Amino acid sequence: MNKTATASQVAVIGLGSMGGGMARALLAAGFRVKGFDVNPTNLEAFAAAGGTVAASAALAVQDTPILVSVVVNAHQTENVLFGAEGCLAAMPEESVVISSATMAPEAARDLARRVEATGRHYLDAPISGGATRAAEGALTILAAGSKRAFTMAGPAIDAMAAKVYELGDAAGTGAAFKMINQLLAGVHIAAACEAISFAARQGLDLARVFEVITGSAGNSWMFENRIPHVLEGDYAPRSAIEIFTKDLGIIADMGRSTQFPTPMAGAALQLFLMTAAAGMGKDDDASVARLFARIAGIDLPGQV
Amino acid sequence: MNKTATASQVAVIGLGSMGGGMARALLAAGFRVKGFDVNPTNLEAFAAAGGTVAASAALAVQDTPILVSVVVNAHQTENVLFGAEGCLAAMPEESVVISSATMAPEAARDLARRVEATGRHYLDAPISGGATRAAEGALTILAAGSKRAFTMAGPAIDAMAAKVYELGDAAGTGAAFKMINQLLAGVHIAAACEAISFAARQGLDLARVFEVITGSAGNSWMFENRIPHVLEGDYAPRSAIEIFTKDLGIIADMGRSTQFPTPMAGAALQLFLMTAAAGMGKDDDASVARLFARIAGIDLPGQV
Repeated sequence: MNKTATASQVAVIGLGSMGGGMARALLAAGFRVKGFDVNPTNLEAFAAAGGTVAASAALAVQDTPILVSVVVNAHQTENVLFGAEGCLAAMPEESVVISSATMAPEAARDLARRVEATGRHYLDAPISGGATRAAEGALTILAAGSKRAFTMAGPAIDAMAAKVYELGDAAGTGAAFKMINQLLAGVHIAAACEAISFAARQGLDLARVFEVITGSAGNSWMFENRIPHVLEGDYAPRSAIEIFTKDLGIIADMGRSTQFPTPMAGAALQLFLMTAAAGMGKDDDASVARLFARIAGIDLPGQV
Repeated sequence: MNKTATASQVAVIGLGSMGGGMARALLAAGFRVKGFDVNPTNLEAFAAAGGTVAASAALAVQDTPILVSVVVNAHQTENVLFGAEGCLAAMPEESVVISSATMAPEAARDLARRVEATGRHYLDAPISGGATRAAEGALTILAAGSKRAFTMAGPAIDAMAAKVYELGDAAGTGAAFKMINQLLAGVHIAAACEAISFAARQGLDLARVFEVITGSAGNSWMFENRIPHVLEGDYAPRSAIEIFTKDLGIIADMGRSTQFPTPMAGAALQLFLMTAAAGMGKDDDASVARLFARIAGIDLPGQV
């Protein structure tokens, strides 16, 4: 068996906005990529980009030493690996799982233990950067795992990421860093939407507010990135409300299980839940601004 | 009367960390500066920097066409101008008040009306940027007022600011923009302190958390600026907790009076109030992290 040739083959399970982009980045870097997704639309896009569609997750990983799992959460990742249609048992004995779904650190530790019990390797590798950077192979990856996991995953990681933080040998550390980022990201989106709606209520020129705030101490990465969606009234989902009901829900669970209060994340979670309850769960996460507009009867572009 | 010579004279009332710096920037730009403050320590520092100490606010403004008022809030500004020791009546008939305290837009509109009723001019000119940039003449000023107010204030504004946003002719608009900035700044400080303490509870390397977050979508201007105080355990006040109990209190008042909910600002206000209640009101605003550390029994540098 030619080790190099085999290592240039990767399976990607989950071909949505992030996984689909990561698969394309791997193709662009010269990997042979087999992919699987439960959504036929995602499979068609992947085939059109030059990928090899597999009929199941288990078939995607056959003779493939690297699996990139980019599903929604820990539960789906567990199903990908250990479910009835799960694929871990079909992977070569010497292989690595690159696990990129956002999940609680404890869930990542648990999955790593179970994968490593089969002799295979596990890289806890949550991602950050959005769909565009995924497709460009320019993600940020927050990675933790054994030396062997890093070595085996290395070429694929390099093809998918512009920046890799190596956060030590304990799976779960990547997940924990990602959750800290999500806590802040969620709070900042909610605050940006509250602030821009409050500015509208005050009768301010919102384009001018965007200009002033992005040049001032009140700025955040999320304010700068999301408020243009509000100003343009464009709520096509680049990242959906449901991502943050999920991720801030994980923060809430982590807070309860470690007895640590997170009042800011809690307030943000309630705003995302209200926005989902108002029927905008699958819309862009800047829709929190439309919730404020609807509640307070103010006029924003693209209001529902 | 030599108009140019007269215009190069400025009075500064309030010589604290911001006003003292602004007075030094005016001195550095060649203005003759008369100053007043109720705190003798501030007067001594001002005299040492080359300023002329006045025995009262009214004496500071005599024959001085430009007054810069940099006190704590609307109430103090009102006292400076209209109180028993107030100075507006002592100012030349053709003169301008540059009002830089943070206050509600309605308070700025009210002060402007009352100043303009005497024939004098009012520039609503809240500031942003911190003490260091104040002393360098490198503040951001959010200015609104009549054309005549802008013209008269212009040379002094230019000496104090690196960036001036001209926000129209209606006093109150500068104040409103400042409050939007303060809403975001307060929420971001509270969120940064919650996130870094939560990361400590999760056992993460906090220096690494700072590195990762400042390179990720969870970043904010405040996270980047304040978290080094937490990592170094240095809570000497660059800006105090009490500034945000005040400013987020104004947001709460504005929200009630215009019937607009601000749950994110409300959650942040409660955290600043808890931190003040725990005895840290005059400490650096990053002390919210020490509140979390104390509540949850985690170890942070400089903990009280």
